[in-house]
Amino acid sequence: MAHIGRALTFSGYEVYRSIVVKDDPEEIDWGIRTALASADLVVTSGGLGPTFDDMTVECISKSLGIPTEINKGALEELKQRYAGLNIELTEDRLKMVRLPAGSRALHNPVGSAPGVLIKHEGKRILILPGVPREMEAILDSVLDEIRIPGRTYYEESFQLNGIMESAFAPLANEAMKKWPGQVYIKSHPQRSEILSPKLEVEVSSSAENEKKAMETVKTVISYLKENYQNYVGK
Amino acid sequence: MAHIGRALTFSGYEVYRSIVVKDDPEEIDWGIRTALASADLVVTSGGLGPTFDDMTVECISKSLGIPTEINKGALEELKQRYAGLNIELTEDRLKMVRLPAGSRALHNPVGSAPGVLIKHEGKRILILPGVPREMEAILDSVLDEIRIPGRTYYEESFQLNGIMESAFAPLANEAMKKWPGQVYIKSHPQRSEILSPKLEVEVSSSAENEKKAMETVKTVISYLKENYQNYVGK
Repeated sequence: MAHIGRALTFSGYEVYRSIVVKDDPEEIDWGIRTALASADLVVTSGGLGPTFDDMTVECISKSLGIPTEINKGALEELKQRYAGLNIELTEDRLKMVRLPAGSRALHNPVGSAPGVLIKHEGKRILILPGVPREMEAILDSVLDEIRIPGRTYYEESFQLNGIMESAFAPLANEAMKKWPGQVYIKSHPQRSEILSPKLEVEVSSSAENEKKAMETVKTVISYLKENYQNYVGK
Repeated sequence: MAHIGRALTFSGYEVYRSIVVKDDPEEIDWGIRTALASADLVVTSGGLGPTFDDMTVECISKSLGIPTEINKGALEELKQRYAGLNIELTEDRLKMVRLPAGSRALHNPVGSAPGVLIKHEGKRILILPGVPREMEAILDSVLDEIRIPGRTYYEESFQLNGIMESAFAPLANEAMKKWPGQVYIKSHPQRSEILSPKLEVEVSSSAENEKKAMETVKTVISYLKENYQNYVGK
């Protein structure tokens, strides 16, 4: 989840929500409808394998009203993967390549179940496996294609010693007002000891190009480093 | 998230959904309303600190229509925590103890912001910090109180070598039909190599008492171990 959110953020998306539901047709239907109601891109992870509780593709197809069919390219890949191994193409295994009509199968370089990319009513649904290595490999392979043109995201973290998060808070507020809408500052306390506090500060910016986003982030970091001492004792 | 889900499952709850939203009042309002629409217990994590984007308690109070007030016990604890350290009780810090009227502050043994337990229209909302050590400590302290009486959950995992998940799938189905509604079987492929597959199998059961749940799990594990060889080559 964190990986998908980060990859999408760096690709120019504003990541709104993450929803986890049970392996249950009604819940999956609720999840996909809820996500599509407010997002241009919906990315799912998990439920693509051969077991009874792997039902993501079938459920999403139903939610979208798209019939499924055996995807020929994906079937070929599955056959090649199993070639010479004496593995039968049972119904359970064929399920992995039964995809929504008109969708694109995305090659899984690690496991058996392909990812799926659906374009539907101006929105995109990207269906990924749950196994992290498989999910990441397939996501990486489509990132260039789904990137938002003209938006670049940049972030940098640094540490501040000797300041409590509650003392840093007003400075962060001040900086975000000084660079309105251009920068986002998050702080994460690294130690909970009041006497020797340590803060990780994450500064991020989204701009038309990387140079501009990076410049803003670096300027704000300098500002925070120059001024935090005035807030330490407060 | 995984920790909360596991703790609630072991406490007899059927965990339905997990929702992550942005630090945004409208999104938090949506999240809490959505959760309350289908759950008896809603547990939140994060957004209790002193920074501008810590707004969980205030937003949830608004969603529920409950005014907030400085919680006297929590304020006392905060004062004691800061005692002798020359730390001012600024508005940002006081925010951490401004809780919904009638709610209960839950002692945070690790950090500054207390957890909150709200009873509202027959449902419970448990608000926890986002820092894992703080979240886990406070959750542990209320688990006995929120446990579902008369339901015990038990799970056990074991490994099977030399069987693909897709070959194991029909056996898992069969076992779940043989013990209907009593047992849940999940499989996680540990290696993706077709030639030397390794599967982690998780068997769980929920019953009136731990003995019964454990017996069911152990019986089903024996059954799976005795029969999986017949499925290996399929």
